[in-house]
Amino acid sequence: MEKVKVGIVGYGNLGKGVQAAVKQNDDIELVGVFTRRPVDTVDVNEEGVKVVNTDDAEEYTDQIDVMLLCGGSATDLPVQGPKFAAMFNTVDSYDNHEEIPDYYSEIDKVAQENGTTSAISIGWDPGLFSMNRMVEEAILPAGNGYTFWGEGVSQGHSDAVRRVDGVKDAVQYTIPKEDAIEQVRAGENPDLATKDKHIRECYIVAEEGADKEEIKEEIVTMPNYFEDYETTIHFVSQTELDENHSAMPHGGFVMRSSKTGEDKENNQIIEFSLKLDSNPEFTASVLVAYARAIHKLSEEGVTGAKTVFDIPLSYLSPKSSAELRKELL
Amino acid sequence: MEKVKVGIVGYGNLGKGVQAAVKQNDDIELVGVFTRRPVDTVDVNEEGVKVVNTDDAEEYTDQIDVMLLCGGSATDLPVQGPKFAAMFNTVDSYDNHEEIPDYYSEIDKVAQENGTTSAISIGWDPGLFSMNRMVEEAILPAGNGYTFWGEGVSQGHSDAVRRVDGVKDAVQYTIPKEDAIEQVRAGENPDLATKDKHIRECYIVAEEGADKEEIKEEIVTMPNYFEDYETTIHFVSQTELDENHSAMPHGGFVMRSSKTGEDKENNQIIEFSLKLDSNPEFTASVLVAYARAIHKLSEEGVTGAKTVFDIPLSYLSPKSSAELRKELL
Repeated sequence: MEKVKVGIVGYGNLGKGVQAAVKQNDDIELVGVFTRRPVDTVDVNEEGVKVVNTDDAEEYTDQIDVMLLCGGSATDLPVQGPKFAAMFNTVDSYDNHEEIPDYYSEIDKVAQENGTTSAISIGWDPGLFSMNRMVEEAILPAGNGYTFWGEGVSQGHSDAVRRVDGVKDAVQYTIPKEDAIEQVRAGENPDLATKDKHIRECYIVAEEGADKEEIKEEIVTMPNYFEDYETTIHFVSQTELDENHSAMPHGGFVMRSSKTGEDKENNQIIEFSLKLDSNPEFTASVLVAYARAIHKLSEEGVTGAKTVFDIPLSYLSPKSSAELRKELL
Repeated sequence: MEKVKVGIVGYGNLGKGVQAAVKQNDDIELVGVFTRRPVDTVDVNEEGVKVVNTDDAEEYTDQIDVMLLCGGSATDLPVQGPKFAAMFNTVDSYDNHEEIPDYYSEIDKVAQENGTTSAISIGWDPGLFSMNRMVEEAILPAGNGYTFWGEGVSQGHSDAVRRVDGVKDAVQYTIPKEDAIEQVRAGENPDLATKDKHIRECYIVAEEGADKEEIKEEIVTMPNYFEDYETTIHFVSQTELDENHSAMPHGGFVMRSSKTGEDKENNQIIEFSLKLDSNPEFTASVLVAYARAIHKLSEEGVTGAKTVFDIPLSYLSPKSSAELRKELL
């Protein structure tokens, strides 16, 4: 079998996760890592994998089936998405929910014009969580849907804490409220805002001589980020932060609760959850499965931007449709 | 908006569930209930819904977009599936896992020859559970997958108990073992046979004068059904069985556990679960969403048999792709 040849653009946590995930998929092969850094400063520690400057990417259009874009959504993907979709089939994890419709339109236009195929907003949220929100709503239209995030590290909130005067380093955990989850599981159909579903826990290294009470006050009253939430603050040493809080766990729950039947008296609860030791490695695993799907779609002549809603699930698997029906249906 | 016009074949628990589910979907309309019973003995209790003998179904080919086949897999669907697929687009819940490949081939042939579209084996297992087994395996190929069923009523096992001498009536619950689920959640990747994952609990009404010890012995030693399982037997009155054990709850868990990363040290756990007060009403809700999907596929000119692996998820929703991207991605 001819392997699907992929490239990685951006060699951070997500890019490294893709490199590791490719090794768990026999039908996929990593050709090169594309970076904006000087290529001799990047060691990918894998025989046969080229390190290439992103400016030279166009020389690789005939060697790579799908390019996995592993940059961030704030500044990298808005530039790299359209740029690479003009040359390659792509998969990205664009996760700025508000901007997804515009991003979709832009990538779709570029991909249609250039005869390429792009899967956008792939991962777990957006991604697997979106699939579950959508399917659950389609099946139980009369119910209520809930998304809980965590327990896990929120980069945005960690960054916000690190910007506070007197904070040297910090990690913020988003933790779903167990009692809110239990209300949903019990079929109570509660009305829950994001603040009703989560608590926030901060581990902070203070600068020497900083006023900890002042830091605490500034965090718990920070609008949008913490003001409306139950927030716990722990001051720790840099050593403790490095040793106990440098992992990147995450996860969450997508749930839907509805009553069915002539008298609407039967509770039906659907629940999808993830418990991830490594958020970037899991996201990378999803990207790799979608690289396989995009390659198949492209081979069939399909072009343009696609999301998790558009791609039949069988395309994610290396197995044939007959094998899937026999083994997994 | 033109509604999707559906018919129901077979007016048992599943058919009644479809009738109720249709009322929760504004874009779908129930045209008729098709039955093998004399039509004047069937009251569907809904204005405007025709009751038609299945022998007269062909007169309705131009009035019905999708026929939902609500018979059983043992004897009804092997006959009704091909028969109706020759005249209508269909959705069924064929759940004889061993026979699915043959059933697929037969329906696919009939549907291709007649220009119809059929979704087979729709529901939750096969159905939503199959989707999750498949997607989880594609994303985490190096891991282990687990399906747990219950807590819920197993018709097959209840029937087996009712066939025992001296048993007047019985209900058998399949209950997933909590400690096995916890092992999976903890990332222990245990090897688990079906008997290691479930216990069986029977509520039995004995005939007057029957030897309860003998009944118990015959059940717990019954090959395949109970012999290998931890089985609990409760003798109850018919009144208690009718009052407390006539509901049809079910559910279960599809889980996958895998280690990712360069050193394979990060546990990743995916879990999908259902907790259903009414198994037939939930299955019916899934069938109705797939009726919408099959209608769209048929309108696009797609023909043949389809499973949950083949149909893009967006087809299940009444919302447009743009709405889905904006609201649910």
